[in-house]
Amino acid sequence: MSLDPDLEVPRGVPAVRHRVVKVRDHAASECQDHLAVEEPLEIRLGGVNLSVTMRTPGDDEELVAGLLFSEGIIGGADDLDVIARYRGPDGDPDDSNVMNVLLKGDSRVARERLRRNFVASSSCGLCGKATIDAIRAALPAVQSNLVITIDRVIGLTAAMHEAQSTFEKTGGLHAAGLFDADGRLIVLREDIGRHNAVDKVIGHMVLARRVPLDRHVLMVSGRVSFEIVQKALTARVPVIAAVSAPSSMAVQMALAADMTLIGFVRNGGFNLYAGAHRVVPGVAELV
Amino acid sequence: MSLDPDLEVPRGVPAVRHRVVKVRDHAASECQDHLAVEEPLEIRLGGVNLSVTMRTPGDDEELVAGLLFSEGIIGGADDLDVIARYRGPDGDPDDSNVMNVLLKGDSRVARERLRRNFVASSSCGLCGKATIDAIRAALPAVQSNLVITIDRVIGLTAAMHEAQSTFEKTGGLHAAGLFDADGRLIVLREDIGRHNAVDKVIGHMVLARRVPLDRHVLMVSGRVSFEIVQKALTARVPVIAAVSAPSSMAVQMALAADMTLIGFVRNGGFNLYAGAHRVVPGVAELV
Repeated sequence: MSLDPDLEVPRGVPAVRHRVVKVRDHAASECQDHLAVEEPLEIRLGGVNLSVTMRTPGDDEELVAGLLFSEGIIGGADDLDVIARYRGPDGDPDDSNVMNVLLKGDSRVARERLRRNFVASSSCGLCGKATIDAIRAALPAVQSNLVITIDRVIGLTAAMHEAQSTFEKTGGLHAAGLFDADGRLIVLREDIGRHNAVDKVIGHMVLARRVPLDRHVLMVSGRVSFEIVQKALTARVPVIAAVSAPSSMAVQMALAADMTLIGFVRNGGFNLYAGAHRVVPGVAELV
Repeated sequence: MSLDPDLEVPRGVPAVRHRVVKVRDHAASECQDHLAVEEPLEIRLGGVNLSVTMRTPGDDEELVAGLLFSEGIIGGADDLDVIARYRGPDGDPDDSNVMNVLLKGDSRVARERLRRNFVASSSCGLCGKATIDAIRAALPAVQSNLVITIDRVIGLTAAMHEAQSTFEKTGGLHAAGLFDADGRLIVLREDIGRHNAVDKVIGHMVLARRVPLDRHVLMVSGRVSFEIVQKALTARVPVIAAVSAPSSMAVQMALAADMTLIGFVRNGGFNLYAGAHRVVPGVAELV
């Protein structure tokens, strides 16, 4: 049984083919399989390195905009001067994995804001509750009278699944989808990193000047960590739904910010962890 | 339908109970559910902040040792002077979420090493291949004549599943397990973060002075990212197995370092993505 000695990944593609040996019932056979692409992306702010993120190529402008928005560096598209792919000293026309951002304001202020945004720490005790208290002091609770019916919650999984493409082929990507109050999918993004998929979705709306998202539902394909809830809160999303489980801090953050957190949306059911008042039995009335 | 307005998470526990509303077949009922705990952990090197990681409490010493080892800051337990929980200015006896590390060598050198360890970047093009080439230049390929039979690969999933505890209750944790050449589980760790579970496993072996792990198999419960393969390579693990899919960069890294990478170990089968020569049909012969 032999495999390709190397794997070439062209720039900018979300999936590649690779020869694998499949073993089923003790019988081995060679075949082509699809792999989700993982590549580093460097973000530069005013030409200076801000971060390197492992991500699946595609919608890089959205990823950058969403990340800057989630971290509180920009408040919207109006704070952005330009997001452009860095093409190297020779103006290489190929896609590179470096994105350069210019802000309308002072980049130094933005960097300082980023530093202050890290998880709060103090010698009197770092913990989930203290971190959430610090975030709540900076960000008000969500304000939204959005309600969603049980049927619409259950329908989210099928709508996500239908729109996913690369995941079907590779089994290797996380997906995030944004739905409007009527349960219609507005945008879906896939990425090797669950946070990136959410950043791309939020970045899409930031660039389209459609934030805040206070009449929307954010759905994620996997688990819900604290960071996902924090990103949703920054964009003012009142309802988060997920195919799998939330963490304790995700629930704590949702409770503290009056957000609705729904987990295990699968097989015609789900669990409500926070904000149960937004889920109603009948047809959704959009007050 | 009502939920608890708050969620108290005691220090140091891996899971907590929380009242949820379960909706099944359009009928709602309240019940207690278990949540995987997510809490921040601050690591200090010589009293100065090194990083803050979201993790599931438990085996924090192992997490710290594994992280420092994976990042190349320590080469083994002998480089460590002490890993101790920071108890606050008043000597608070409770568990805190701050771990302080003292090295035998110079912390400034270690910090410098960490800075250089970040994903390589250059103006001529940041990409997966360049990153892997940089790592390969610093780390030799694995050297191991370990072989594993098809039966043993298939048996890994059941052995992992049997040993997992918190995941069963919460559905919210990643697991990583280390097996010896005979397929025996040596250590299993669970964490909300997939990298943390691997760091805890490797840290366990570092503290036990049992690295390098060149006669071992590392199994992870989910997907395999580039970073997981990099951590395994640092510990000299020749075989990585996973329940789900690897990324393109995980496969590239495994191919470049002559590691065996096995994915989709489930339902009595698996896929081989790299290093197929270490998987043999018959009974494993340990040469």
